[in-house]
Amino acid sequence: MKQLAVTLNHGSGGGMSRELIDTLFKKYFNNPVLNEMNDAAVLELSSKKIAFTTDSFVVRPLFFEGGDIGKLAVCGTINDLAAMGAKPVGITAAFILEEGLEMAILENVVRSMKETADQAGVSIVAGDTKVVERGNADGVFITTSGIGVIPDGLNIGGAMARPGDVIIVNGPIGCHGAAVITAREELGFKTRVRSDVAPLNKLIENMLRVTDKIHVMRDATRGGLATVLNEIALQSRVDIEVHERQIPIEDSVRGVCELLGLDPFYLANEGRIAAFVHESEANQLLEEMKNNEYGKEAQIIGRVVDNSSKPMVILKTAGRGSRVLDILAGEPLPRIC
Amino acid sequence: MKQLAVTLNHGSGGGMSRELIDTLFKKYFNNPVLNEMNDAAVLELSSKKIAFTTDSFVVRPLFFEGGDIGKLAVCGTINDLAAMGAKPVGITAAFILEEGLEMAILENVVRSMKETADQAGVSIVAGDTKVVERGNADGVFITTSGIGVIPDGLNIGGAMARPGDVIIVNGPIGCHGAAVITAREELGFKTRVRSDVAPLNKLIENMLRVTDKIHVMRDATRGGLATVLNEIALQSRVDIEVHERQIPIEDSVRGVCELLGLDPFYLANEGRIAAFVHESEANQLLEEMKNNEYGKEAQIIGRVVDNSSKPMVILKTAGRGSRVLDILAGEPLPRIC
Repeated sequence: MKQLAVTLNHGSGGGMSRELIDTLFKKYFNNPVLNEMNDAAVLELSSKKIAFTTDSFVVRPLFFEGGDIGKLAVCGTINDLAAMGAKPVGITAAFILEEGLEMAILENVVRSMKETADQAGVSIVAGDTKVVERGNADGVFITTSGIGVIPDGLNIGGAMARPGDVIIVNGPIGCHGAAVITAREELGFKTRVRSDVAPLNKLIENMLRVTDKIHVMRDATRGGLATVLNEIALQSRVDIEVHERQIPIEDSVRGVCELLGLDPFYLANEGRIAAFVHESEANQLLEEMKNNEYGKEAQIIGRVVDNSSKPMVILKTAGRGSRVLDILAGEPLPRIC
Repeated sequence: MKQLAVTLNHGSGGGMSRELIDTLFKKYFNNPVLNEMNDAAVLELSSKKIAFTTDSFVVRPLFFEGGDIGKLAVCGTINDLAAMGAKPVGITAAFILEEGLEMAILENVVRSMKETADQAGVSIVAGDTKVVERGNADGVFITTSGIGVIPDGLNIGGAMARPGDVIIVNGPIGCHGAAVITAREELGFKTRVRSDVAPLNKLIENMLRVTDKIHVMRDATRGGLATVLNEIALQSRVDIEVHERQIPIEDSVRGVCELLGLDPFYLANEGRIAAFVHESEANQLLEEMKNNEYGKEAQIIGRVVDNSSKPMVILKTAGRGSRVLDILAGEPLPRIC
């Protein structure tokens, strides 16, 4: 009979580990490289310049409106690669499972990973599974890593922002953070916000096709838009100015933030990038972004003002004042991704 | 004042996350690629054919004779790459930390990772840190991923074993499993076995220099030597014969196994590979292996007997009998790596 829950034996490296691989991981992730089942996947790349990244995912709860830990784990790694201008080639997935986890839950997570990877056109080429005793982990943690090839001549990075660059985001911010919060039953929200979690590699491919003047792209995940803008300001040694009125925020996200005393600029996104582009190409880029399903609501939100020895992000508020948008201080939201 | 324990704030993506990165991860792993601090590390490879692998490490306890979870995490990934004939280029490290973990423990783990990576000549090029609430993880889990370049013309894999191939292991088996068991205080062992955990990439580089007739190499980790021999037999569709008398096992490991009713053939190793080489080159390869610190006690342990539609691993016992060495059945040892 098929096992209904994860046991320690599934992590032993023996017969039950193999059964789990065959009946679950290979069933869904099925591809020639994974099926080789060697110590490492062997890949032939189209370029010698690559991007390489890793992220662990510990989101709680595992399922939320618009996504789940599996979709998140695949998108997170794809978006980190794409933000560097890389075309994702392969992803690995390492699972830490808690003894007693229902197999049906794991299967839903794995199916979601497969669907997301297919949508993005990326294969899951290697993996690992460990099982820890009941009470020593929280259901399932997933670590994904990925590699992507970087086209010749591309040079995107956090230190490349220049005065005059225009900043574009591809849609409303804070949805993912609000989605996870409203999915937490203990908080008693009746309406749930839908996460923005999405694979952005195809959007970004199209963006790179219309202009070679994108200097920085960054995935606005943990710490939100405010944090990534600060990181980029610091790395590039520039002052940044953004306009509150131009930053798209959904009413539902505003509502959650008001109730809980949170600031949407610091809420996590899992399908939002900030792109810094030379001002001469900004409108053309914006139009291109709007043609993609994940860029429909793209907006120009601000610009790089000047070089600076004391880099700062200034928010021009709706009431014509301004305030410094600092890096995240105060209490964090744990387990948001 | 410096924080003495991990807090949820260290996983927020904000100021304390950055402090942890600056004062711990960058301090030890310090290298130009990591220091770029982009969404992904950018690497220039020497070849377009690569190996790519991932593993999570959940060993309990975190420290044992001869190693710790950090050394294990680095060696595990390096050895998976090296076993495919790849030269490791870069490693990523993703940490899942439990709130309350002592910072001094984390620092010891990180220092150990750095020392091991240096010894192997490999850089840690990207990373991630998540923190989960107290009681939702067991101290620290580490997931490492790695990429390595595969030299032209090399074709090593589990399906390449051929009749006549000789099987060599690079030293005594079962030490890692026995080391972790004897480090568990609840079991009350007075003498501790020393783990074999080691980076094998330099040994393997030398092996590949003396012969191009190595058909299979595999890291005998979870499930032990018996499991990897079975995996290779199945992938290559061959029967394998090994000789008990020729398989090196330390007395201390035998002692632990006798006490606990374990079989050393199924104990995990973290610095042992099984290499399958054409018989004409076996002695030359063995001599070369003995010149390396991790190959001093290398031994020929058996051979591939024949092609087979029902692949099997036969152990010729010391008493001149023989038994089938099947894949791991019965109770596993949880959290051994």
